[in-house]
Amino acid sequence: MKVGIADTTFARYDMARAAIGAIKKEASLEIVRYTVPGIKDLPVAAKKLLEEEKCDIVMALGMPGAAAQDKMCAHEASSGLIMAQLMTNKHIIEVFVHEDEAGDEKTLAWLAEKRSVEHAQNVIRLLFHPEKLTRLAGTGQRQGYEDAKPIEGGSGGSVVH
Amino acid sequence: MKVGIADTTFARYDMARAAIGAIKKEASLEIVRYTVPGIKDLPVAAKKLLEEEKCDIVMALGMPGAAAQDKMCAHEASSGLIMAQLMTNKHIIEVFVHEDEAGDEKTLAWLAEKRSVEHAQNVIRLLFHPEKLTRLAGTGQRQGYEDAKPIEGGSGGSVVH
Amino acid sequence: MKVGIADTTFARYDMARAAIGAIKKEASLEIVRYTVPGIKDLPVAAKKLLEEEKCDIVMALGMPGAAAQDKMCAHEASSGLIMAQLMTNKHIIEVFVHEDEAGDEKTLAWLAEKRSVEHAQNVIRLLFHPEKLTRLAGTGQRQGYEDAKPIEGGSGGSVVH
Amino acid sequence: MKVGIADTTFARYDMARAAIGAIKKEASLEIVRYTVPGIKDLPVAAKKLLEEEKCDIVMALGMPGAAAQDKMCAHEASSGLIMAQLMTNKHIIEVFVHEDEAGDEKTLAWLAEKRSVEHAQNVIRLLFHPEKLTRLAGTGQRQGYEDAKPIEGGSGGSVVH
Amino acid sequence: MKVGIADTTFARYDMARAAIGAIKKEASLEIVRYTVPGIKDLPVAAKKLLEEEKCDIVMALGMPGAAAQDKMCAHEASSGLIMAQLMTNKHIIEVFVHEDEAGDEKTLAWLAEKRSVEHAQNVIRLLFHPEKLTRLAGTGQRQGYEDAKPIEGGSGGSVVH
Repeated sequence: MKVGIADTTFARYDMARAAIGAIKKEASLEIVRYTVPGIKDLPVAAKKLLEEEKCDIVMALGMPGAAAQDKMCAHEASSGLIMAQLMTNKHIIEVFVHEDEAGDEKTLAWLAEKRSVEHAQNVIRLLFHPEKLTRLAGTGQRQGYEDAKPIEGGSGGSVVH
Repeated sequence: MKVGIADTTFARYDMARAAIGAIKKEASLEIVRYTVPGIKDLPVAAKKLLEEEKCDIVMALGMPGAAAQDKMCAHEASSGLIMAQLMTNKHIIEVFVHEDEAGDEKTLAWLAEKRSVEHAQNVIRLLFHPEKLTRLAGTGQRQGYEDAKPIEGGSGGSVVH
Repeated sequence: MKVGIADTTFARYDMARAAIGAIKKEASLEIVRYTVPGIKDLPVAAKKLLEEEKCDIVMALGMPGAAAQDKMCAHEASSGLIMAQLMTNKHIIEVFVHEDEAGDEKTLAWLAEKRSVEHAQNVIRLLFHPEKLTRLAGTGQRQGYEDAKPIEGGSGGSVVH
Repeated sequence: MKVGIADTTFARYDMARAAIGAIKKEASLEIVRYTVPGIKDLPVAAKKLLEEEKCDIVMALGMPGAAAQDKMCAHEASSGLIMAQLMTNKHIIEVFVHEDEAGDEKTLAWLAEKRSVEHAQNVIRLLFHPEKLTRLAGTGQRQGYEDAKPIEGGSGGSVVH
Repeated sequence: MKVGIADTTFARYDMARAAIGAIKKEASLEIVRYTVPGIKDLPVAAKKLLEEEKCDIVMALGMPGAAAQDKMCAHEASSGLIMAQLMTNKHIIEVFVHEDEAGDEKTLAWLAEKRSVEHAQNVIRLLFHPEKLTRLAGTGQRQGYEDAKPIEGGSGGSVVH
């Protein structure tokens, strides 16, 4: 199994380091890193990792700014990442941290680290333990800030129907 | 016939359980469940269920949050689900419950359950009883809350022209 | 020639009956009707009618609600319908009536009927009388409410250049 | 060389006549005109002109209304026109005149005429004189209203590097 | 290696000259320039440069206006550029300067020049020195205005994992 990591020079935190560290902690996998200027360059970078580098899954890491134009860029990048997945039948886990998700830089750095780590764990689950994701289905998992609580006695999905 | 169920760990209610229960009540079908982290992972999950697991139809279940960013994610996911259908010529029934569709958690849970069940019934109709859908055409069917009423003497469609 | 009619159980008026009636009045054509739950199911339904049922053209009939979320659904459905046309090189005539296009239910029903009928006439023109559309080019045709007037002596297009 | 002209019955001015006149003034070319009901029908019409009628380039002419819903239609049509170009590797020159671009009908008619003519000239340049476009690069060309001025001594591009 | 430069006559500054100058300073490469009327013509122009002119990478240069309609055009163009990349598995570096990014024309010209130059450097890195981009990962690089600072001790990515 081979994991692609696509990240940007635009981001203000080295999210890839966090993600790569978390992946290595959980599994021994080949990792290919590909850095592009900004988030709108991520869709083709991810697709190239999947098709040319033969990765089985990709993480696309980015930090969109807080302005309206940045939100639009993030929307365009996200739409492109979904299309890239549909063209390859492989997952690209988008890990975006918007600059306005935290009130100060310290929290923003913490969030970027934590979200990258927690989505790296999702990558491992998708590759090796899909049943673990199903057990967490409907339980309000969040990556970064605290999980939301399941509502009304939700208790995670069953892998047996 | 084989039904795929794609759901998320982000959701706060186990909508898949509700959907699977409703399907089993109506028909004996093979069901494949595939849980991903969030709604933006649903399009490729649904496409993989259709193409790799050879499902005949997929339900894509999710609970987008109430913030503007969550609405954008839901839009991106919905667009991807439509594209996945166009690439496969198969239906993916989107069952999204937005967190702001209910004023309290109890109602939200009820809504998530009810909408999942009612869309599971639509899945059965699409697979086995398309003429039942035509009889309901133009009658203001809603999934979850009460149906809208048909206007001006609307009385459902006729399958014979 | 074969015409596909895709409609929804969500709509509150049987627009398909109006459209089918108008088509039959003008031409003897095979008609295939396919009803789906909502407008976001229309793109793949229309594509299946074109590709699996070998229709030459499709009408996609729907009645989006008035809320912001409904407008977004209509946008996603419209984008999908355009993509389905580009993938098949065939026309899908979208006939959407937004609930907030009329102040009362009686007018809404009248509008749904009239727009369906007038677009059915467009379908006949596209199939059999394209020169009639060119003669109407630039004349402010509307489907449902009164036509807009051509501006500044516009008088319709010429089929001879 | 063959030019496709796609236009609509919705428009309130015969933009195609203006465009065809301007093309004929500059070159002797085969022209195929294809009129559809509205701007959302233009993407597939343009693609059919390129693929079925073997046109080398297409002009897509339309006049979106001023309401929010009309703006959304224009957005969907524009996105479809871009996709149609990507699927064919040929240009489709979009010539849209929004009803709210002019304060009165006389100006609107003038604008529709002028923009159609000036984009027809762009079509000729793209087909026969691409170097003329490069000489105008970065000079603030507008179609219809007065050109914007180049800023800071901009003086058009050079075709020799 | 061959670099495509797609630019517009709509822009008010000759961004291509800036980009081409910067590329030539760093490497001896074949450059193909292709000028189109506006930014919505850039996606197919870029794709033609990649596929018909066999370019290895393309820069797409444009200057969207400040009005809401211009922002929508930029969104459509950006979405198309991302799709063109996914269809070719090659990078198209978008270099857009919005007219409202600067308070006066002098600054706007400076910004258009600087952003074009800095993105030309990104092109060189993508082609010849991808490891340089990785060393800059997460450091808040901006093209044009001053770089953002990395947060919380970010120090650029490592190419060795």
